[in-house]
Amino acid sequence: MSPSQEAPLARPEPASAAGVSAYAQVLPSSAEIGPDGHLAIGGCDLAELADAHGTPLVVYDEGHLRRTAHDFADAMSRHAPGGEVVYASKAYWGLAMLRVVHEAGLAVDVASGGELHAALAAGVPADRIYMHGNNKDEREIEELLAARVGAVVLDGFDELDRLERAAAARGVTQRVLVRVTPGVSGDTHEYISTGQVDSKFGFPLASGDAAAAIERVRESPSLELGGLHVHIGSQLLDLSGFPSAAAVLARLAREVGAEDLGLINMGGGLGVAYTRDQRPPSIDEFVATVVEAVRAAWSAEGIPMPRLAIEPGRAVVARAGVTVYRVGGVKDIPGVRRYVSVDGGMSDLLRPMLYGATYEALRVTRPADEPVEPVRLVGKHCESGDVLISEAHLPEVAAGDLICLPATGAYGVAMASNYNGVPRPAVVFVDEGHARVVARRETYADLLSREL
Amino acid sequence: MSPSQEAPLARPEPASAAGVSAYAQVLPSSAEIGPDGHLAIGGCDLAELADAHGTPLVVYDEGHLRRTAHDFADAMSRHAPGGEVVYASKAYWGLAMLRVVHEAGLAVDVASGGELHAALAAGVPADRIYMHGNNKDEREIEELLAARVGAVVLDGFDELDRLERAAAARGVTQRVLVRVTPGVSGDTHEYISTGQVDSKFGFPLASGDAAAAIERVRESPSLELGGLHVHIGSQLLDLSGFPSAAAVLARLAREVGAEDLGLINMGGGLGVAYTRDQRPPSIDEFVATVVEAVRAAWSAEGIPMPRLAIEPGRAVVARAGVTVYRVGGVKDIPGVRRYVSVDGGMSDLLRPMLYGATYEALRVTRPADEPVEPVRLVGKHCESGDVLISEAHLPEVAAGDLICLPATGAYGVAMASNYNGVPRPAVVFVDEGHARVVARRETYADLLSREL
Repeated sequence: MSPSQEAPLARPEPASAAGVSAYAQVLPSSAEIGPDGHLAIGGCDLAELADAHGTPLVVYDEGHLRRTAHDFADAMSRHAPGGEVVYASKAYWGLAMLRVVHEAGLAVDVASGGELHAALAAGVPADRIYMHGNNKDEREIEELLAARVGAVVLDGFDELDRLERAAAARGVTQRVLVRVTPGVSGDTHEYISTGQVDSKFGFPLASGDAAAAIERVRESPSLELGGLHVHIGSQLLDLSGFPSAAAVLARLAREVGAEDLGLINMGGGLGVAYTRDQRPPSIDEFVATVVEAVRAAWSAEGIPMPRLAIEPGRAVVARAGVTVYRVGGVKDIPGVRRYVSVDGGMSDLLRPMLYGATYEALRVTRPADEPVEPVRLVGKHCESGDVLISEAHLPEVAAGDLICLPATGAYGVAMASNYNGVPRPAVVFVDEGHARVVARRETYADLLSREL
Repeated sequence: MSPSQEAPLARPEPASAAGVSAYAQVLPSSAEIGPDGHLAIGGCDLAELADAHGTPLVVYDEGHLRRTAHDFADAMSRHAPGGEVVYASKAYWGLAMLRVVHEAGLAVDVASGGELHAALAAGVPADRIYMHGNNKDEREIEELLAARVGAVVLDGFDELDRLERAAAARGVTQRVLVRVTPGVSGDTHEYISTGQVDSKFGFPLASGDAAAAIERVRESPSLELGGLHVHIGSQLLDLSGFPSAAAVLARLAREVGAEDLGLINMGGGLGVAYTRDQRPPSIDEFVATVVEAVRAAWSAEGIPMPRLAIEPGRAVVARAGVTVYRVGGVKDIPGVRRYVSVDGGMSDLLRPMLYGATYEALRVTRPADEPVEPVRLVGKHCESGDVLISEAHLPEVAAGDLICLPATGAYGVAMASNYNGVPRPAVVFVDEGHARVVARRETYADLLSREL
């Protein structure tokens, strides 16, 4: 191993036969080429991991995860002391993951009863949990009240009524944030753009619903107003929407009275690089931008700066994870293209099919070898749309080779299915040369476990 | 119940306050409005099922399934005696479903080791199983050889090599069909169009690979050539691609010698109505068209008519199934639209998000009441793209109401995930007033069962 390969990869550089530095933006920071020419993460050879645990295999660099969670907490403490970083667990709610973010001092946001159950099972204290979702049903409301979660992010009048009734029946008071639809959206895929007026989420501001919801909460003996919540969109590579969103919220806060709006949760949205050409803002830039947007907006309205929260999910976990596949076949269609089939696909990584998302691919063995003509990297699913990468730039590959897709840590296994009866992959955490399975591979018996 | 409501619904008719006949094309044939004004399937009140089993709930009309499977078998026996109907289990591979099609005399196609395991567990004899997939890995090949499946549909040279080696090692001879990419595609969504030259599936015909594969199989002592396979696309509402595909196959058969090409599997593709305006060909039309296409093409080449197989999946199961959701909230955005949120979404029905697929929605109680302005029917997932129906035509609905989505029997639970930690729904089979749970609802404990 050359010295340059031992150092953590930090800056994008041109592709080089010496290493994988061209992929530094999309690989975990511990990525290196080991002595036998294999790509390694967290000091673990990916080929050895694939042999030991099978493929497809999802591998998380635990050190990278810890550092990223810490970087968020650190940026918040520098830019807005006392502020809170809340991990959006929908990006990946494995128990080991939830423990990492909790130990790093992050709170956890959950989007359903299932995610709440996972967070509690991981040992996250209930008062560190924010309960999200645009349609919390009666069971979920009973569960969150029984657990005594720290805050419920209220999304509509129907669930406000349900929560109020259930809290009253239990004789408890539940702290809530009122989620506001600001009419401001981030520049992103329409599926994950959420701040616009035409949204299923939150109380619209323009119609007066947001103010009315705040009033309803204030009048309720079973609810306690904790603040406001807004989320303008996900996978933002441009943060220019935050000042407008903050301005809109600050105006609302002044109009309705800011005295009990102690916490302003500005949501998530920080994008990540899925491909080498993407340059997302840094964690520090993101936190600084959000903090400054709120500070400026609240100052302009002449109201005291609130406590701030942000909710990163993808930006905590995406780049820490890679998926390793094994090539099963190569098919040349003369004059058209070469297809390379791997042993996973849309059942373990749906984002390419669902959002047209793009990923990079690296051959695990000598990844920096000269690339050949682009190939179409496809999965094993019985469906033409099962294309992982439309034009993958890879060196020569053959059946049996291993392929690594970087930046699959967010919304990968979290969206996995058993489509075509394909079992879901194992998940391995690696760190400093040690690997541990945190979720075992699904078995055929598991597939039938709910059949009667 | 009026007499007209008791009769099975067979023909599309204008919406009428008297019943749900306008939805006859998309509902199971037993659909009716019960005495208390509730939509009922298989003689079972959907509101009672929802109360008993929770929501979201997937309900299959078992009688409709049996009749549809029988209709395929019957059409094949009339148009091409001795022909075979093979159920494409990827559409829904629940064990109860596999038993229904097996009892109706259909063979089963499986697309993975997991589906093979399910078919065997359901009691389908191995010799009635066709093993599909564009990338059968070593484990799957060992499994199919151990089970002694009736035929392997070969998709590429790499897996041909693997299969040959593994069969030789076991000292067995495996019957195979060679899947040909004919360069003919059906008129459908690009994700499910498969016959075109630029496809991951099959041996391209134009390049000579198909003929070379046939030759390789003939020369192999471990493989036995059983015939050819072709699949031009799915959800076809227009069958005009079949004569060209058959012509291409027949020419190939003549060129390579038809003597050991005893079975021609023309694949699936028959579309179904997801919405009232869609008019798919009937089962009889589909079978007749495919049979006639093959007969004409083989006759034109002067070779003897082969035994025929077809592989319907969606057309067997889609319309037999409905999904019942409960409304959790209604949100009005003045001047924009009304959002109606239900307690499922993209984790149990992905097709709207993945393919832009459209569905109908009916209120379970008095479904034929006058519709109000279209609403956007959305799920409970923490994602803006979680839209089940962009413009749903429903009567007034409020929190607590039940909504039925027809024609969700194919690629519904088969593609289900735990996205956002949402457990997968229960599946109920109904028939003549009796309901039985065939797959229990997933629990929170299930969600964590693979976590270590």
